[in-house]
Amino acid sequence: MARVLTPRAEDFPRWYQDLIAKAKLADNGPVRGTMVIRPAGYAIWERMQAEMDARIKDAGAENAYFPLFIPENYLKREAEHVEGFSPELAVVTHGGGKQLAEPVVVRPTSETVIGEFMAKWVDSYRDLPLLLNQWANVVRWELRPRIFLRTSEFLWQEGHTAHATREDARAYARKILHEAYEDLMVNVLAIPVQVGLKTARERFAGATATYTLEGMMGDGKALQLGTSHELGQNFAKAFDITYSSAEGGREHAWTTSWGTSTRMLGGLIMCHGDDNGLRVPPKLAPIQAYVMVVKDGEGVGEAARKLSDALRDAGVRVALDDRTDTPFGRRAVDAELRGYPVRVEVGPRDLAAGNAVLVRRTDGSKTPVPVADVVGAVHAALAADQQALYDQALAHRESRTREVATLAEAIEAAATGWARVPWSAVGVAGEAEANAQGVTVRCLLRADGSVPDSEDESDLVAILARAY
Amino acid sequence: MARVLTPRAEDFPRWYQDLIAKAKLADNGPVRGTMVIRPAGYAIWERMQAEMDARIKDAGAENAYFPLFIPENYLKREAEHVEGFSPELAVVTHGGGKQLAEPVVVRPTSETVIGEFMAKWVDSYRDLPLLLNQWANVVRWELRPRIFLRTSEFLWQEGHTAHATREDARAYARKILHEAYEDLMVNVLAIPVQVGLKTARERFAGATATYTLEGMMGDGKALQLGTSHELGQNFAKAFDITYSSAEGGREHAWTTSWGTSTRMLGGLIMCHGDDNGLRVPPKLAPIQAYVMVVKDGEGVGEAARKLSDALRDAGVRVALDDRTDTPFGRRAVDAELRGYPVRVEVGPRDLAAGNAVLVRRTDGSKTPVPVADVVGAVHAALAADQQALYDQALAHRESRTREVATLAEAIEAAATGWARVPWSAVGVAGEAEANAQGVTVRCLLRADGSVPDSEDESDLVAILARAY
Repeated sequence: MARVLTPRAEDFPRWYQDLIAKAKLADNGPVRGTMVIRPAGYAIWERMQAEMDARIKDAGAENAYFPLFIPENYLKREAEHVEGFSPELAVVTHGGGKQLAEPVVVRPTSETVIGEFMAKWVDSYRDLPLLLNQWANVVRWELRPRIFLRTSEFLWQEGHTAHATREDARAYARKILHEAYEDLMVNVLAIPVQVGLKTARERFAGATATYTLEGMMGDGKALQLGTSHELGQNFAKAFDITYSSAEGGREHAWTTSWGTSTRMLGGLIMCHGDDNGLRVPPKLAPIQAYVMVVKDGEGVGEAARKLSDALRDAGVRVALDDRTDTPFGRRAVDAELRGYPVRVEVGPRDLAAGNAVLVRRTDGSKTPVPVADVVGAVHAALAADQQALYDQALAHRESRTREVATLAEAIEAAATGWARVPWSAVGVAGEAEANAQGVTVRCLLRADGSVPDSEDESDLVAILARAY
Repeated sequence: MARVLTPRAEDFPRWYQDLIAKAKLADNGPVRGTMVIRPAGYAIWERMQAEMDARIKDAGAENAYFPLFIPENYLKREAEHVEGFSPELAVVTHGGGKQLAEPVVVRPTSETVIGEFMAKWVDSYRDLPLLLNQWANVVRWELRPRIFLRTSEFLWQEGHTAHATREDARAYARKILHEAYEDLMVNVLAIPVQVGLKTARERFAGATATYTLEGMMGDGKALQLGTSHELGQNFAKAFDITYSSAEGGREHAWTTSWGTSTRMLGGLIMCHGDDNGLRVPPKLAPIQAYVMVVKDGEGVGEAARKLSDALRDAGVRVALDDRTDTPFGRRAVDAELRGYPVRVEVGPRDLAAGNAVLVRRTDGSKTPVPVADVVGAVHAALAADQQALYDQALAHRESRTREVATLAEAIEAAATGWARVPWSAVGVAGEAEANAQGVTVRCLLRADGSVPDSEDESDLVAILARAY
């Protein structure tokens, strides 16, 4: 097969760009830093959305929609928040042909405007918890854009909740972290994410604690795939979100926020992609089985259609490719690029022997299968390859992770992968030193792998890496 | 029951505002003209989206996503388009802390940016038709905003397609008009829409033909619920969307665009709402059956839970309200406001007789039903009330529509409803005269009710009305 992409080992960033272009996942938009998500990329995003939305609703949150435009003064009410976001804001100064009396910012995130409405809607402890989520576009002006990873506009979901107590807020931030985000990433995206606590330096602007999910990409770098924040009473105080308690007093609420975005598409590509293109985990794939007519011949088209129908009836997401006026080789290369988990190739020669050929994207294997057995074989391949992709990603992460004792060793290990090092050997000063060399503390864990409440706990492990 | 809303007959606009506030469907946003869609309103929008999305995909279009920000110069390339949208644009002049070299506009619609990419993606006739759709927010600065009907930011889907011939483009614009839009509005929203052709004066900026779907609201005014446009070769020429034909020549494509928005929520309220609140057609309703524990008592809570489970198992979208610490009357008023199609009230007295009470929102009827028969009775009520809402809306429209012969009569009839008048009795001059009196030509039809290709056809009927 001719070389279609720059090999990963030769130039990983170039491979990433090549793949996005050749698989027709996305394009750069006309305004610097923006992107066009093409149908092949958007179909994967829609599947991520559907799976995430179901988990968020299972966790009790309801969807709503808040405005794109936020008065500039809202952003300024929480000191750390405005400091964190000011450099990235897009500002609208003219509307309806006139200069605006007060400029409005395009939302970089919605804590402030949602805080304003939570204050209106929450009166008594009976109104809590208030559990909201929205699917929206947000804008953060990017100087070094990269499609899906850092774009000036991206799509995401942002959850915002208000609770009566710190404990409730913490429990909910962690519920979303594990039951929605980790579950989706591990069980659908097949990405073995490391869940942990961000250091004070890496925390969200305005949060008291930020939890993160970090994936290792094909080149050993880390990608933050989602975050969940405890906001303490910072936004409740800035926006006056108060409630009357059962005892009759007036208390400030405790709020959380949490988000995942189209960045997950970048993570998917860089975690599972190979030199032939994308590999989409079967549970996520918009097209799980791609039935191809190899070339025309007695009964071939009809057999392919029947197989396609039988697979669809068996609950498989299927597409039929009978474009025999396009060379088979080119169509097969495109199918590899797109990463369809299974191809079912139907051609005159195999069909004469009663077979179709099952091609698995994960390992590239090609197996003749009797036509009557195709549905069962596809189901088995989809289940096995969901697991295989996860196992490969986990093995890759383990092979590229080093357990070290000192900051210097950790920085060195981060040249090729992740370092696990005692947080006590790094600390705030060590973190600054690592940052100066392009290495960041991705997250902190307890010795048993669980997620700490605070970086002040003893015996914490830090994960250091280069990151996107 | 105490008066909860301003009666429609007293002040229709006030009733509309009251309903939106008291049913907690939406709030005004902090930037003038923007809105917050609250969970109860958003849940209905999500159901509209799901039903519309399925129809759009059935029509062969694929979802994609194009950027929010459009270079100002794109808008200027199509003369009528820029003239139509310039007064409504929001302009970003600063990004990332700096003044931008070229200001960017926030999309009021995406013909221009999508035209740019169609030009890149279309090469040969084999690439046509190109059928795209996106779900997005758009911004059109509004001086007289009204929630859901005219807001500075709204949510919508916008479809954009390119075709090899004018005939293909026309057929597709009409396919979406009838198979997606009309089908959804009639069969799910239960709104008897009038489908027709817009006059040149009312056409979309840049279109060669605009088809529309008009609903009659409770006060006899018209609301445009969706439009589908033939754009001719206007955008293809402005953005150089060309293809090589089978014969080898280079031709400009023919494009279409079509959209429906959160305005449908306003139409739903004003078409079906009554003095007690919203009435949501069963096929659309996020909650079809609302099971209420009237008050605590022997086995009441358990019976309500079992009924709720049985309904859910039978495919009914159900919610259980067992908040007996809130007065039943207040909960019942809220349920009326929200417009749940059916309530199943479970209380100690009826339960002792083996019954629950079925309350139908459409006609307000309350019927004791043996517990074992509730699932069947709910199914029957949902089917009957879907039809009843449509029939009521159609009867209302017919009672408020007058067949007249002259422009003067049509303008008079439009004071209370719709006028049907020969287009030859109106014409371009008459249309301007009507406009001056606040009456517009909503659409043109053929005598047999079908949709004309051009306003120059003979024997056309014009519908004149006041409109939102």
